[in-house]
Amino acid sequence: MIKVGIIGATGYAGAEIVRLIQGHPDAEVVWYGSRSFIDEKYSNIYGNLFKLVDAKCMDDNMEELASQADVIFTATPQGLCASLVNEDILNRVKIIDLSADFRLKDVSVYEKWYKIEHKAPQYIEEAVYGLCEINRDKVKGARLVANPGCYTTCSILTAYPLIKEGLIDPDTLIVDALSGVSGAGRGAKVANLYCEVNESAKPYGVASHRHTPEIEEQLGYAAGKEMVINFTPHLVPMNRGILATEYATLIKKDGKFLTASDIRAAYEKYYKDEKFIRLLDDGVFPETRWVEGSNYVDIGFKIDERTGRVIMMGAIDNLIKGAAGQAVQNMNIMFGLDEATGLELVPSFP
Amino acid sequence: MIKVGIIGATGYAGAEIVRLIQGHPDAEVVWYGSRSFIDEKYSNIYGNLFKLVDAKCMDDNMEELASQADVIFTATPQGLCASLVNEDILNRVKIIDLSADFRLKDVSVYEKWYKIEHKAPQYIEEAVYGLCEINRDKVKGARLVANPGCYTTCSILTAYPLIKEGLIDPDTLIVDALSGVSGAGRGAKVANLYCEVNESAKPYGVASHRHTPEIEEQLGYAAGKEMVINFTPHLVPMNRGILATEYATLIKKDGKFLTASDIRAAYEKYYKDEKFIRLLDDGVFPETRWVEGSNYVDIGFKIDERTGRVIMMGAIDNLIKGAAGQAVQNMNIMFGLDEATGLELVPSFP
Amino acid sequence: MIKVGIIGATGYAGAEIVRLIQGHPDAEVVWYGSRSFIDEKYSNIYGNLFKLVDAKCMDDNMEELASQADVIFTATPQGLCASLVNEDILNRVKIIDLSADFRLKDVSVYEKWYKIEHKAPQYIEEAVYGLCEINRDKVKGARLVANPGCYTTCSILTAYPLIKEGLIDPDTLIVDALSGVSGAGRGAKVANLYCEVNESAKPYGVASHRHTPEIEEQLGYAAGKEMVINFTPHLVPMNRGILATEYATLIKKDGKFLTASDIRAAYEKYYKDEKFIRLLDDGVFPETRWVEGSNYVDIGFKIDERTGRVIMMGAIDNLIKGAAGQAVQNMNIMFGLDEATGLELVPSFP
Amino acid sequence: MIKVGIIGATGYAGAEIVRLIQGHPDAEVVWYGSRSFIDEKYSNIYGNLFKLVDAKCMDDNMEELASQADVIFTATPQGLCASLVNEDILNRVKIIDLSADFRLKDVSVYEKWYKIEHKAPQYIEEAVYGLCEINRDKVKGARLVANPGCYTTCSILTAYPLIKEGLIDPDTLIVDALSGVSGAGRGAKVANLYCEVNESAKPYGVASHRHTPEIEEQLGYAAGKEMVINFTPHLVPMNRGILATEYATLIKKDGKFLTASDIRAAYEKYYKDEKFIRLLDDGVFPETRWVEGSNYVDIGFKIDERTGRVIMMGAIDNLIKGAAGQAVQNMNIMFGLDEATGLELVPSFP
Repeated sequence: MIKVGIIGATGYAGAEIVRLIQGHPDAEVVWYGSRSFIDEKYSNIYGNLFKLVDAKCMDDNMEELASQADVIFTATPQGLCASLVNEDILNRVKIIDLSADFRLKDVSVYEKWYKIEHKAPQYIEEAVYGLCEINRDKVKGARLVANPGCYTTCSILTAYPLIKEGLIDPDTLIVDALSGVSGAGRGAKVANLYCEVNESAKPYGVASHRHTPEIEEQLGYAAGKEMVINFTPHLVPMNRGILATEYATLIKKDGKFLTASDIRAAYEKYYKDEKFIRLLDDGVFPETRWVEGSNYVDIGFKIDERTGRVIMMGAIDNLIKGAAGQAVQNMNIMFGLDEATGLELVPSFP
Repeated sequence: MIKVGIIGATGYAGAEIVRLIQGHPDAEVVWYGSRSFIDEKYSNIYGNLFKLVDAKCMDDNMEELASQADVIFTATPQGLCASLVNEDILNRVKIIDLSADFRLKDVSVYEKWYKIEHKAPQYIEEAVYGLCEINRDKVKGARLVANPGCYTTCSILTAYPLIKEGLIDPDTLIVDALSGVSGAGRGAKVANLYCEVNESAKPYGVASHRHTPEIEEQLGYAAGKEMVINFTPHLVPMNRGILATEYATLIKKDGKFLTASDIRAAYEKYYKDEKFIRLLDDGVFPETRWVEGSNYVDIGFKIDERTGRVIMMGAIDNLIKGAAGQAVQNMNIMFGLDEATGLELVPSFP
Repeated sequence: MIKVGIIGATGYAGAEIVRLIQGHPDAEVVWYGSRSFIDEKYSNIYGNLFKLVDAKCMDDNMEELASQADVIFTATPQGLCASLVNEDILNRVKIIDLSADFRLKDVSVYEKWYKIEHKAPQYIEEAVYGLCEINRDKVKGARLVANPGCYTTCSILTAYPLIKEGLIDPDTLIVDALSGVSGAGRGAKVANLYCEVNESAKPYGVASHRHTPEIEEQLGYAAGKEMVINFTPHLVPMNRGILATEYATLIKKDGKFLTASDIRAAYEKYYKDEKFIRLLDDGVFPETRWVEGSNYVDIGFKIDERTGRVIMMGAIDNLIKGAAGQAVQNMNIMFGLDEATGLELVPSFP
Repeated sequence: MIKVGIIGATGYAGAEIVRLIQGHPDAEVVWYGSRSFIDEKYSNIYGNLFKLVDAKCMDDNMEELASQADVIFTATPQGLCASLVNEDILNRVKIIDLSADFRLKDVSVYEKWYKIEHKAPQYIEEAVYGLCEINRDKVKGARLVANPGCYTTCSILTAYPLIKEGLIDPDTLIVDALSGVSGAGRGAKVANLYCEVNESAKPYGVASHRHTPEIEEQLGYAAGKEMVINFTPHLVPMNRGILATEYATLIKKDGKFLTASDIRAAYEKYYKDEKFIRLLDDGVFPETRWVEGSNYVDIGFKIDERTGRVIMMGAIDNLIKGAAGQAVQNMNIMFGLDEATGLELVPSFP
């Protein structure tokens, strides 16, 4: 039984880890860390867990946690994990960080986009970017996994095979994405009140959202060159779900545009054995309702011969594949379990 | 492995049975009946099951089904099950009917409220009303189970112990209930379009909703006398969930009102070992979000000494405990499995 | 041109006053009071008013305001209006208080339910309860109007004629009500975040909500005796709207129950010339969508001969007839304008 | 008093015309055409108009209508207007067609994208494309106005000045747009049921939506050359609102990228006196909530120097500026009224 500690257990991502571990046959939560609710019963805060979780919330004491847990999930704001981690802890416990602290290899990029000083740059090199389908092998032996962002998971996986295979021009990539409101977290902010969000759609972080360099870095590895993209997130009124619609110009092969079967072949090359990636049939496009409650990434595409572009579309549940589910998937890989253990969730509709 | 056939597999309740059976270790769906979609791939209609269900939809052929399945769920409009069932079928296969055909023991009450002729009144007596927590023992040996309605499950279980123990005056019971929209089914009706339902709340079926006699009959058994109640359902803009708020005048004991601990004791007498009923702490009232995605019934209450009434409140997920989940629970009981098999679902939030 | 000052202009009710006054031909806002946003452009906070309101937010200085405005709306938490009002101010400016400070005639009831000390009990007697359709004549000459609560406006108007005419037993009245989320205000509270409210319904303030004594007092005047009722509010996921479903036992006349036409006659006696009350046709029940964006109260009813009760139902837009619209209606009456000036709003659907 | 006839008065766009005309001082509806509801009271279908509209629905008899009305709005599916219009009718009454029949100048483009034969191609040349801010002068004398589509109104106005001034490369334009559900109309389709749409976001009509050639044609006039664009609409769970996010590569001037003030200057050149276009402040982006209930177009932009692109964003209420509001605006222009008559609607929030 893997002993799981969570720092930030009362945020939405932390609570989703709790829920997933409840259904995980080989893991149990031993530490519900939540600075704001120390000594309060966890199920007072998340009533869905009434009669299922009897524990109280604990301090964010990573030292103590390291001696009680086999793995620590940090589902906290940027900066916290980096400020707590050290060699002694990493030698005793595995860490899966859901914040951005160890996602970007270039510390100056991190500091520029996140506007905070990095407190543990010495672990950046070692940290593995936990996009399971791409970095599975590296995750296996990792002490410290940087769990990808929600938008980034969806955006990268949707475009990866076409970039990797050189089928699209990386300089033309535009990612336009929609997110449900749980991505904004559980902080008490006016902007996230029901009446502020309901019955409205809005772009935000235009040309400045912090998931941009993360997408660029990872897709850049696939492209074999530095990439600069446009990424525009939008908030739409729903609890869960991310939908990424991505545009890029197709390269020509022998003076002719690629066909749908060329594109499909590239997706299948990388994803055909991936349990959590569903390549949709031709003419079918992803909808967030079909992945809600699951660890799936649904991907579809359409070639527009008029413009010479391909439109790639992906959908995930932001709290599962975009956060807690992928974190558990990483845990499974790190501990040598079947990657899908506890994650065989059928999407729930309606 | 229990072989499951579903008639009406493409309605919301039918689809929820499919989803639950996907996660059930001892059952599998062998027949996806859907008259409207014969020969169409099931996952074309329910995209959440893409790559999970490969089967096509079949006819509503109960004869044929009876030879292929161990149990048939009929998730169809009133009248269909009664029109198909016969002795031969009942001898070969167990039937769990999610329609109202066999819920009411008095056929004239059925015909009055449902305004259709009952085609198989000879099985009404035999049919067991499958409210598991109350009728568990009778369900065990049943050939034909009448799966309770969504409103009724919630309304009955919320008041049952207080009626049964004689703590409230049955003549004063008023049930005011709210439902999410999935209860209205998947038919293409203007009244259920997004824009018609969203941003609105409305009562309907006032003093005429067909779940009324069902609640009256079952609570009447508990009261030991005929009951007549007011039941007012309301439609509110959410996908899932039923909330029942019920009012009744407390009886006095030795000239004094009952206390909260008297009430709690009554609830505990009947429910303390019930896995799927969660009696909430004092001062905590049910919210549909805390049961969504699970088979739980959450129950809370409040005594109002000013008026001498108790307010009882219950919440369920209408598609699970109010339909498919309870149907699977009945199946588990009928086949001698642990009642909770495949139903240990942690409510999903947000 | 009536000069309007608003204290609490950046809450939802305050902002709705601003919006309504924008369309009012005989009034203009001269003071946008908002302690939290002093010196900030009002349209930075309410983007809907961009290019329509150029003013900045001001302090809550009632002294200064009294010299600049003809009428002050206080759309603030309980206690503030009572702490600011004095004889000098009341002599110079009319006050319409949207808080509860002057709604209850018995100061001890106020202090018990609101749990704060009343700072200006000397004006309680003078203050007029501004339920326009009932107290129109008293409002005319008032210096200080207590604008009714949202739930109370809907609950009282829905039952008033039947209580007043003695057609129902006041001791049996139960009010079960639903509200959209804007009624909870614009404060940054976790409980009102989108993801906490969306896809859920919940009761709250059960047997303890502070609108209870207000309903009891006003309906008690109609009944000619003290009333004690059950009032249960519920939060449902929509921006606007209140729906009240009310139950009471019909009295018998000459041993026979009253008929629908008796009930209708009572409603018509009081409301047939009321512009903002729409008595629905038989068999039609109110839905919040049909009043949204307007100052209407829609009322319907149903007699249940089986139980001897009448179910009365009413719907309003909580921010208009339940707050800002009624406040403007009161202003119109106080200043001798046509009561409907600026309020001839056609409900907006969808 | 302008006498208004509406064909298709019971669809969402038609009903919005009815609502707007209710508040229009110089117009009145004399004919509520609705083939599906002939002889039924209009307010039975749209309860918001109870006590406001007493009329019954009428046939779609354009001949008869032409003799009773001064202007006919056709808010009907494609093909109907073209099949009814003739010289006699056009000589007697003005027509504002909300369908696509007369929007595209090239009949073959119409027939290709709409897949129906055009029944009145002889009027295509004469018809004026009623995008008021661009074609105001032509609308003045028109007999037949083609009211623009909802997506197109928003998409065109958001990009127009930059295309017209040559500040962006037309070949790089990508329009990614979100729409509320009312855009899908009031037809009883499973795809538009509450539970199908709620809690989900989806792309549709990818590289094939019929508003594409309309945007291309109109922006092509501005560009002075044929344009081919990508346009991807998405359905998001809200009643009203369209948000367009548009991407294009900035041209360089003297080897340097254009600045925000260059862009702003272009917008101001065309829009600074436009009552219904609000150019937002730097760093402010449109949100549909701020335009809901109004005829406004809110426009914002952001330059991304990293990629050399400008992101242009626009928001409208799809039923007002995207349909009924613009239709009334066109009517005002055609009849020599102040363009804003009856349209000075303050956006409603929340």
